[in-house]
Amino acid sequence: MDLAILLFDNVTPLDAIGPYEVLRRVPDLRVHFVASEPGIKTADDGVLALVADRALHEMPAPDLVLVPGGHGEVAMREDERVITWLRAAHETSRWTTSVCTGALVLAAAGLLQGRRATTHWTAMGELARLGAVPVAERVVEDGKIMTAAGVSSGIDMSLTLAARIADDDTARAIQLAIEYDPQPPFDAGSPKTAPTHLVDHQRRNSRFVD
Amino acid sequence: MDLAILLFDNVTPLDAIGPYEVLRRVPDLRVHFVASEPGIKTADDGVLALVADRALHEMPAPDLVLVPGGHGEVAMREDERVITWLRAAHETSRWTTSVCTGALVLAAAGLLQGRRATTHWTAMGELARLGAVPVAERVVEDGKIMTAAGVSSGIDMSLTLAARIADDDTARAIQLAIEYDPQPPFDAGSPKTAPTHLVDHQRRNSRFVD
Repeated sequence: MDLAILLFDNVTPLDAIGPYEVLRRVPDLRVHFVASEPGIKTADDGVLALVADRALHEMPAPDLVLVPGGHGEVAMREDERVITWLRAAHETSRWTTSVCTGALVLAAAGLLQGRRATTHWTAMGELARLGAVPVAERVVEDGKIMTAAGVSSGIDMSLTLAARIADDDTARAIQLAIEYDPQPPFDAGSPKTAPTHLVDHQRRNSRFVD
Repeated sequence: MDLAILLFDNVTPLDAIGPYEVLRRVPDLRVHFVASEPGIKTADDGVLALVADRALHEMPAPDLVLVPGGHGEVAMREDERVITWLRAAHETSRWTTSVCTGALVLAAAGLLQGRRATTHWTAMGELARLGAVPVAERVVEDGKIMTAAGVSSGIDMSLTLAARIADDDTARAIQLAIEYDPQPPFDAGSPKTAPTHLVDHQRRNSRFVD
């Protein structure tokens, strides 16, 4: 089974690396990092660089597609090569997935029209404007499309996905291997639990209109 | 403030990228990826490539040091340049930290002698053999040394660290920005909660003697 993770400049690295770390441990699954132009892609802070080793046309029909988010998603929404590839890949994929604002790229390709989906909490309005039905859950499934909320939620989504494409014990074994027994020191990971002044500040400073 | 994250071939990417994603959002903190030889470092599955942009000698005295784990840690324990750099950097660092089997590199440098520390659950015996006092907790502090358990625990450690070097609200704001509101679909992330047959299997197949 082949998983294609889209990379691009100004990607949020954890959106891609959380799922990568889970899914690469699924037996018989091969991970590929794909891009319109293979090569070094710089993360959205300009520091970390990841390498995309395949061009999109080299992976026309992956079994699994994953689109991460980050500021660079805006350019992806307007990149005809990416949109065309996504539409074609989705025709034959077993699962088409996104993390964080990667959902906006799926939506721009028309794949989320009228479908339940999630994204980073600051981007829910944008997701609706692009035709999806936003759902404020951490992992949302609609048919063969699975979307995850902000950044770190890709880990939860990928464990769910591992259970679907393999079985529950495979997912549990991976969770144990990456020792995913989360114990955040604060309870501020969602706009429902974070202090209101922090939620308001981030909403105001978001690149999305509410 | 400067954070140096050590990279090397056969690193486990999430060990480095989890903390990176948290700590790069701390105001006035600059992240650098350092290595004995700068350039492309290949992850422990041979697929993902990350770029180290600085040589160790270019960052002799970072405020924060972070050593991730992965199979490549064995070579790091025997790399005199790394060991010498770690000892010197630790002299002046504000915090010296590790994720997963990165703790074994700190131990090999003599920094954990008689100190409480943690690592991946399969490597606790090895950590003891290297002179540390293993503690089965997710994040362990001893003086200015902070160590995290396996792979994904670096996210929890980094939020704790963000609160120490900035303040609680900064850590909470970062947690909200990366939407770290974990909801794993299974409860198998620790040898205490995972099914016994999975724990036994991974212990038997670990590269560490128990």
